[in-house]
Amino acid sequence: MYEGPVQTLIDELSRLPGVGPKGAQRIAFHILQTDKQDVQHLVDALREVAEKVRFCSICFNISEDDTCRICQDSRRDRTAICVVEESKDVAAIERTHEFRGLYHVLGGAISPIDGIGPAQLRIRELCQRLVDTTVTEVILATDPNLEGEATATYIARLILPMGVTVTRLASGLPVGADLEYADEITLGRAFAGRLKLGD
Amino acid sequence: MYEGPVQTLIDELSRLPGVGPKGAQRIAFHILQTDKQDVQHLVDALREVAEKVRFCSICFNISEDDTCRICQDSRRDRTAICVVEESKDVAAIERTHEFRGLYHVLGGAISPIDGIGPAQLRIRELCQRLVDTTVTEVILATDPNLEGEATATYIARLILPMGVTVTRLASGLPVGADLEYADEITLGRAFAGRLKLGD
Repeated sequence: MYEGPVQTLIDELSRLPGVGPKGAQRIAFHILQTDKQDVQHLVDALREVAEKVRFCSICFNISEDDTCRICQDSRRDRTAICVVEESKDVAAIERTHEFRGLYHVLGGAISPIDGIGPAQLRIRELCQRLVDTTVTEVILATDPNLEGEATATYIARLILPMGVTVTRLASGLPVGADLEYADEITLGRAFAGRLKLGD
Repeated sequence: MYEGPVQTLIDELSRLPGVGPKGAQRIAFHILQTDKQDVQHLVDALREVAEKVRFCSICFNISEDDTCRICQDSRRDRTAICVVEESKDVAAIERTHEFRGLYHVLGGAISPIDGIGPAQLRIRELCQRLVDTTVTEVILATDPNLEGEATATYIARLILPMGVTVTRLASGLPVGADLEYADEITLGRAFAGRLKLGD
């Protein structure tokens, strides 16, 4: 319906996650009305990411160098590894400032429907890291859903014989939530994991 | 929270309309996992639009040349001009195949809150086009909202003395809608504009 380049841009934008045809059209018209220089900033940012960013050779978190900032940081606690599904989970955990150890990014969770088995994840690489005995605790921080739980169970069975402490993030009521509206599984876990006060 | 280029990309993407911080993060991680070649296609599409696409010197619709395809097309009816707010409205009307005349893109609607008065729109250019007396009808197809109605009223007053027929798109119930759920103003207009059958 549009002149050539605008339609091409709309088609390209429609491929991005969370951008539908209407959203793509809106962004394309925004680009049309934007300064060339601002468009150049966006273009540069896209290219930088496509060309420069890769995955850390140790933990598979996103990185500009061969190893990421966290793996390079000598102040991090090298006795603990937190296992997550994606790089964005690393960012989420870092925002809490609760964890000072290292990470291991699996690259997803076991999901037979999507054809993702243990071989598609970086589980072998995790085991290799545990051969070095400085690691004493592995925290399984996969998502608290079916795939994440299955992945955590699989990894726990695999690495428990290696003599490390294996932990899982606590499940329970989210802070600020309304007990009345919590689903039964969450509420059940909150009961099962209840903490004694006054210690 | 992320390494340099990824955060820069997230910031740039967040400026796009309809893309929030979460959406920008999702797109950035998608870009990270996309083939370099596919990212290049997106980059090329953005640059093409920023560099090649401009506005038609007659009707201000988007165009790759000095004048747009519609203004160049000798088969279009040169006695009618349809006045719209944005280029996307031209595309929407073209999809109906109901109108074979020319367009005039105002570049927005009168909106004092946003600091847009008649001087910021291409109303003067519309008047200049009407000096040529081949145009006999001006269809005001601005949006049926407060700003669009104000713009239509303003333009109508300005051009009626020039001796052209000025029309406004019909307001009424959208096709496929449920009468019960129509708002009062729309239903009121549908009544006011009711058509006699059997003519």
